[in-house]
Amino acid sequence: MQVAETISSVRKAVKAAHRRSKTIGFVPTMGALHVGHLSLIEAAKKDCDYVIVSIFVNPTQFGPGEDFQKYPRPLEKDLDMCRKAGVDLVFAPAPAEMYKSGNITWVTVEKLTDPLCGRSRPGHFRGVTTVCAKLFNIVGPDLAYFGQKDAQQAIVIRRMVEDLNMPLQIVICPTAREPDGLAVSSRNKYLNADQRKDAAALYRSLEKCRRMVEAGTTDTAALAAEMRKTLGEFPAIEIEYLSIVDAETLEDTDRIAGRALVALAARLGPARLIDNIIVEA
Amino acid sequence: MQVAETISSVRKAVKAAHRRSKTIGFVPTMGALHVGHLSLIEAAKKDCDYVIVSIFVNPTQFGPGEDFQKYPRPLEKDLDMCRKAGVDLVFAPAPAEMYKSGNITWVTVEKLTDPLCGRSRPGHFRGVTTVCAKLFNIVGPDLAYFGQKDAQQAIVIRRMVEDLNMPLQIVICPTAREPDGLAVSSRNKYLNADQRKDAAALYRSLEKCRRMVEAGTTDTAALAAEMRKTLGEFPAIEIEYLSIVDAETLEDTDRIAGRALVALAARLGPARLIDNIIVEA
Repeated sequence: MQVAETISSVRKAVKAAHRRSKTIGFVPTMGALHVGHLSLIEAAKKDCDYVIVSIFVNPTQFGPGEDFQKYPRPLEKDLDMCRKAGVDLVFAPAPAEMYKSGNITWVTVEKLTDPLCGRSRPGHFRGVTTVCAKLFNIVGPDLAYFGQKDAQQAIVIRRMVEDLNMPLQIVICPTAREPDGLAVSSRNKYLNADQRKDAAALYRSLEKCRRMVEAGTTDTAALAAEMRKTLGEFPAIEIEYLSIVDAETLEDTDRIAGRALVALAARLGPARLIDNIIVEA
Repeated sequence: MQVAETISSVRKAVKAAHRRSKTIGFVPTMGALHVGHLSLIEAAKKDCDYVIVSIFVNPTQFGPGEDFQKYPRPLEKDLDMCRKAGVDLVFAPAPAEMYKSGNITWVTVEKLTDPLCGRSRPGHFRGVTTVCAKLFNIVGPDLAYFGQKDAQQAIVIRRMVEDLNMPLQIVICPTAREPDGLAVSSRNKYLNADQRKDAAALYRSLEKCRRMVEAGTTDTAALAAEMRKTLGEFPAIEIEYLSIVDAETLEDTDRIAGRALVALAARLGPARLIDNIIVEA
């Protein structure tokens, strides 16, 4: 497995892979890899001949007061995991390599970035789309893999790729979950034992919503109220948002008709956690 | 020469050219081709094995009240010129092909787009950078050619390419001029005979500035005052801006030190004309 720290060495490796007509699969990450990332790598390995993982804690997608500094960076462990997963190349640049020329160009997606996480993290998606545009331009993948856990991010990036005619395809993979249902996340590390236990309620509330929809409830206010009741039993869980929106447009809806995204963000002690499911009525 | 109206047919042709290891040169235009465009095509022919010209009057770079509707669209004549110039492929999409999915993703370059034309044409550069990003993603060129006449555009696009790590190189070619010095432009067609005659004063004022700098004047206020005096003799010329700025940052400067861009925009009857030169002190 090659580890590249510079853009030019990635380009060189990709050029060589292209020359051998290899399909390039790309998994952009912020490191602190877990089974969720591994499932993306696995999917990429299945579809592609040459798999690239980027490890880059992107400063421009963190707001002031967010966890940029303390975000875990276990690089050696990450590289080991990539090696074992059969990754061909890891791109692990320093911030100065990625933002050599300063940073005055932005890629922004309107509308889809307004609700949900966009409301509480202004500038976050602009940072995500910009760094993904850069990484796509550096790596030149045929396919890039994202997790359904970051549902809004996946929808926003897919839209960016479509609108800007980027020559790649976005693949969205299912959320990896712990045995109690908690979505696997690098930020779960921030939880103490009690918080970790309570955190499972997030997914339980989503599952409750799914069951209600399956039983015929489509009134989003009623569904949200039931979810809030479930979560209300855990005083440590501070809901940031709990939204049931159209799964394509992310627009609010009074009644589920077609595919809806049930998404929530909550603070639990030092951690901000997000999770979501897709329901259909 | 192939004429492509769809994105998929361009991609197919480019893929075939790549397979034959051809270097792709790209000249994005809004059509109404003239000797300025031909000089870009010529440069591309010299550097590259396969030359693509796009002809697309991009709606998103025109403001309300600007000349989007009346902008000349002599497609057959343009295709003839491309054929004679040895272009390999012309991409002439309809707006619906370029903006299939609506238009909620934007590429913006900050700072460099604030002064000069950015001040009088809000949203213009956002339209230019976004459509260029799309065209670059569709065409996948190794080199793309722009004219020095649109100096700010060239600087903004070069910066976008650098900041977003787009895998191509921007080549900036000298401004083509009429015998009396007027910069060749598709918008010169809007001028009547008297206006056309007066329009030559724009370049004369730039040349006067160049001579003064060569003679040792570096005070930008003094240079601008002299230029305004030259242009003041033509009441039909309405100056929109006349700026002497750092040639890299486009920031105002009291005194020329290094390379400076002397740029102006003026209305002459129905036409808005721009021109510029680089001076060095």
